Amino acid sequence: MKLPVSELLLTEISRTDFHTKLPQHRRLYEALRGAILSRQLPFGSQLPSTRDMAQELKLSRNTVLSAFEQLLAEGYVTAQTGSGTFVADTLPDQLAQSAAENIPQPESGTRVLNNSEANKTSRKLSARGESMSAVAGGKLFEVQPFAPGDADYSAFPFKLWQRLQNKYWRAGRPELLDYGQTGGYLPLRQAIADYLRVSRSVRVTVEQVLITAGTQQSLDLCSHLLADHQDTAWVEDPCYWGARRALEANGLKLHPVPVDNEGMNPGAEDMDKPPRLIYLTPSHQYPKSVVMSLARRRLLLELAARNNAWILEDDYDSEFRYAGRPLASLQGMDYHDRVLYLGTFAKVLYPGLKIGYIVVPPDLVESFKTALYDFQRPGQMMVQAALADFIELGYFATHLRKMRLIYGRRRLLLQKTLYGALGGNIKLSPAEAGLHLVIQLPPQADDIAMAAMAAEHDISVRALSTYYLSDQREKGLVVGYAYV
Amino acid sequence: MKLPVSELLLTEISRTDFHTKLPQHRRLYEALRGAILSRQLPFGSQLPSTRDMAQELKLSRNTVLSAFEQLLAEGYVTAQTGSGTFVADTLPDQLAQSAAENIPQPESGTRVLNNSEANKTSRKLSARGESMSAVAGGKLFEVQPFAPGDADYSAFPFKLWQRLQNKYWRAGRPELLDYGQTGGYLPLRQAIADYLRVSRSVRVTVEQVLITAGTQQSLDLCSHLLADHQDTAWVEDPCYWGARRALEANGLKLHPVPVDNEGMNPGAEDMDKPPRLIYLTPSHQYPKSVVMSLARRRLLLELAARNNAWILEDDYDSEFRYAGRPLASLQGMDYHDRVLYLGTFAKVLYPGLKIGYIVVPPDLVESFKTALYDFQRPGQMMVQAALADFIELGYFATHLRKMRLIYGRRRLLLQKTLYGALGGNIKLSPAEAGLHLVIQLPPQADDIAMAAMAAEHDISVRALSTYYLSDQREKGLVVGYAYV
Repeated sequence: MKLPVSELLLTEISRTDFHTKLPQHRRLYEALRGAILSRQLPFGSQLPSTRDMAQELKLSRNTVLSAFEQLLAEGYVTAQTGSGTFVADTLPDQLAQSAAENIPQPESGTRVLNNSEANKTSRKLSARGESMSAVAGGKLFEVQPFAPGDADYSAFPFKLWQRLQNKYWRAGRPELLDYGQTGGYLPLRQAIADYLRVSRSVRVTVEQVLITAGTQQSLDLCSHLLADHQDTAWVEDPCYWGARRALEANGLKLHPVPVDNEGMNPGAEDMDKPPRLIYLTPSHQYPKSVVMSLARRRLLLELAARNNAWILEDDYDSEFRYAGRPLASLQGMDYHDRVLYLGTFAKVLYPGLKIGYIVVPPDLVESFKTALYDFQRPGQMMVQAALADFIELGYFATHLRKMRLIYGRRRLLLQKTLYGALGGNIKLSPAEAGLHLVIQLPPQADDIAMAAMAAEHDISVRALSTYYLSDQREKGLVVGYAYV
Repeated sequence: MKLPVSELLLTEISRTDFHTKLPQHRRLYEALRGAILSRQLPFGSQLPSTRDMAQELKLSRNTVLSAFEQLLAEGYVTAQTGSGTFVADTLPDQLAQSAAENIPQPESGTRVLNNSEANKTSRKLSARGESMSAVAGGKLFEVQPFAPGDADYSAFPFKLWQRLQNKYWRAGRPELLDYGQTGGYLPLRQAIADYLRVSRSVRVTVEQVLITAGTQQSLDLCSHLLADHQDTAWVEDPCYWGARRALEANGLKLHPVPVDNEGMNPGAEDMDKPPRLIYLTPSHQYPKSVVMSLARRRLLLELAARNNAWILEDDYDSEFRYAGRPLASLQGMDYHDRVLYLGTFAKVLYPGLKIGYIVVPPDLVESFKTALYDFQRPGQMMVQAALADFIELGYFATHLRKMRLIYGRRRLLLQKTLYGALGGNIKLSPAEAGLHLVIQLPPQADDIAMAAMAAEHDISVRALSTYYLSDQREKGLVVGYAYV
């Protein structure tokens, strides 16, 4: 069987986007190999002689010879002395016969990216993959004016940070290049333990602090180690969206528990779904900004102890408090070792830093360390070392004070502007801490439509109702002020 | 009810490790709060007057007043004019009655860490958590002479790297501090695409390259997005241990398929467990170092296409090839878009860098981007920018050449030494690439005992049989030579 091989190849190698950076013989090899693999050149078909091919493709004969030799060496073609070069039958016997019919051919246009088409690829993704990528949450959370969750990173002390990092790069300590198997760089763990003990009344020794790549990774680790597939996790309703995503992705069944003015408020009916995990933001509920009352804290600690459940305390944004006395952490009130305390430097320093931490009960430390290493592989010890210095030398406290002032001013300005524009008609959430506030709306309001309208003016606020899992949705607009 | 409160407190606050960094009134507050939360001071019990307490504890009255005020403000105590200060009943009604009996009290000594005890905490960990932390794999993989998987990072160009990083820190571009939602820093994705196209014959456009935090994170993402809980994953038997861990942790059922001299060799019986995912190391099987044959490659590509299965091609250590022509990637031979190509800079540069990549089929790119952001949160854009320069300016190629020479010499030395010491009695695995080789042992050998013996001499080799999932175990010693 002779085929118009050269024409096929000419079309291919004359394409301007075809392996332009490769030498000619590699380009020819790629074209031939592609034709064989895609069955444009079927098993057993004969290739032209190297002399003919060189002539037809206007290449030197050596170029063609070199391509043939590589194909021969890799087993794509066989050479029979005197009779020429043939495409080898490399498909195993058991598959060769029915091959042509049975294999789904790539659809035309697969290589053309198209957002709306990409969303229809359900045949390809798993069920959990489908739900993980259905809503492009990232799109909703771009750094934009008023987007909740954003902080302002332009005030970051670039030069100082560079100096602290360079100290370690200059020292060139190879052990800081490794993954690190000890739960993190010890001086950083010590600095965090000291900070949490004083500022958040966390009951913590340095051994209990494990450095992770951030809150998502902390949640991933906790949900793997402390819960099994289909276990129940209680979440606040409304709830922080990233945490929901992490728990769901790891097979947990989420049970929403309503949030009132004292925080998460479990009732008798919730006890039908006893939790294995309870995800909480007690210092400053996300997104409603409620501070959990002492009575509710003790209730949840008791519930956790009785159910052998674990509380994941996400103490996000606790560093940014503008008024009032900071409330102690839930972890610090727990005398049954049922709370894991989660923190991050994403907002205080910058998100791309990818350093967070978990405070783990003492008897779980070894298991968490093992899984942290085996499963996630930590790293970034150089950055951890710089961060430890940043805290120990007092720069962290200075940076916090500075950002607190900046954000505090923006918060006041936003509050004034809103009251000024809308008068006594609006109610704002408590905003003594954090980087966002909520404009409360009446039940009949369509907050989703309002957020969409705002988006048309490039104002990125989020509808409060979208944070709910249940149908008992309050209406409002969640407005970040850190980035304006 | 009056209790010897002051004695209790004295014991506590005179402990040298009790909140030593706090001012006196905070220490007293912490001691009182602790006593209330742990029920050493029961509901309703009366505290001494501030005057008495100040006298007994040898503190100023203001210090005691300040502690009392904070407890009062937080609701831990109530004050009745004329009759004194009492511990408040903050436990909700529904729980208060049965509280004392039902709550498991913390076992004595919980706060004392002890390795052997920590391993017994099964009541606390989930089933998957138990299996994830049962074997302290990390311990086996410490950077030690001859440990497989280790590379030598002391040759890393610290100063050059520092210079490249500083360029971006000096520029102080705040957008490089964010998570990054686009799948990674574009010039880095471009540099990787160019490298893979030329060096590994990967069929790739820049859009298909997504930057992850390393191979564990790539595997985590792929197993979530492409497979569901209890789906079957084929793994090579023997298999890379980190991959097994990642797939299992995400609920996949592992089906071991034997590896012969041509790579993974699925038989008819394996088809009873049709795969959803197939994890492969075709260029250089881990740990046996076999190169997968062309016929086997085509078989697996066909199998994947027919079963709508996905192949995860882990092209680890492909950068380190000392002899022979590099084999093209499996991904480059796939015309059905069924292969995801996984790479990392962990070995080539350094592990703590935490930068790897996946090449994703075009129609999955958008879903992967969304999940990468929502689920893992990327970041480290500053480091990505420096790495892009490192590659583009040719330093990467130089570093690779240098390390290839160093490792090549160590490989030869190890081979010579082994042959010299053990003569013709030993067989070594092919070692044309990578950073380890396998000393093949007869079936009756006890490779586990031999590895343990070596460990006593601080030589960290691993028994080949420990890499197997099935009982069909070959015996041998896996020896790394990169770090010696």
